[in-house]
Amino acid sequence: MIPEDLTYLLEQPGFAHVATIGPNGEPQSNPVWFMWDGTHLLFSQEGGRQKMKNLRRDPRIALSIMDFDNPQKYLEIRGEVVAFDPDEDYTFVHSLAKRYLGLEEYPYLQPGEQRFIVRVEPHHTTRMG
Amino acid sequence: MIPEDLTYLLEQPGFAHVATIGPNGEPQSNPVWFMWDGTHLLFSQEGGRQKMKNLRRDPRIALSIMDFDNPQKYLEIRGEVVAFDPDEDYTFVHSLAKRYLGLEEYPYLQPGEQRFIVRVEPHHTTRMG
Repeated sequence: MIPEDLTYLLEQPGFAHVATIGPNGEPQSNPVWFMWDGTHLLFSQEGGRQKMKNLRRDPRIALSIMDFDNPQKYLEIRGEVVAFDPDEDYTFVHSLAKRYLGLEEYPYLQPGEQRFIVRVEPHHTTRMG
Repeated sequence: MIPEDLTYLLEQPGFAHVATIGPNGEPQSNPVWFMWDGTHLLFSQEGGRQKMKNLRRDPRIALSIMDFDNPQKYLEIRGEVVAFDPDEDYTFVHSLAKRYLGLEEYPYLQPGEQRFIVRVEPHHTTRMG
């Protein structure tokens, strides 16, 4: 599914710009931290955010990831969110903080914050470079 | 419209990840070079590309731009494409090549390629950082 020569973009701590469909069918875009488990792309989301509401309404998603060192290269993954797993003890978001910030704990948690692990199944890719 | 403290993200040569709506209502995402004229965000597009077809069908668009030097910061612009101006003599795409690559001419033009200047009117922004 993922072009072999671009899997490094999923294995290094880059930024995936997530496109979702808003309440009136309009596109929305924002960058996220992510992990790749070899099959699914995972990112963390707070329960109450607009993107979460969008994805529960319409699970179709696209993510584009650039190579910062070679900006002529990017990978786009189009697919579907197949699970919203509760990240009850924040294990996942802490692991992202480790990967991206070198910290043991995600530093921006609010008291009582509900976090989910959003699991994306790739259906199709596009690329440049 | 644009938060004053984030206008620098539009004035420097960054990458805008463009979200558009595909033929079946699905989101699509990819990075582009852009210019900001103080009112509109402009990018270059080849006439036959999927993104062009998407935007002619549904002009709603979102673009997210990260600060590479401070990845906790980003600006999202949501809005609408208000014009597709023919870039007949390639002046605009050449000016992007100057801004992004330091070259006098865009090096990837194909013979007979039709280029357009896509003009985005911002309606709303979201941000982090």
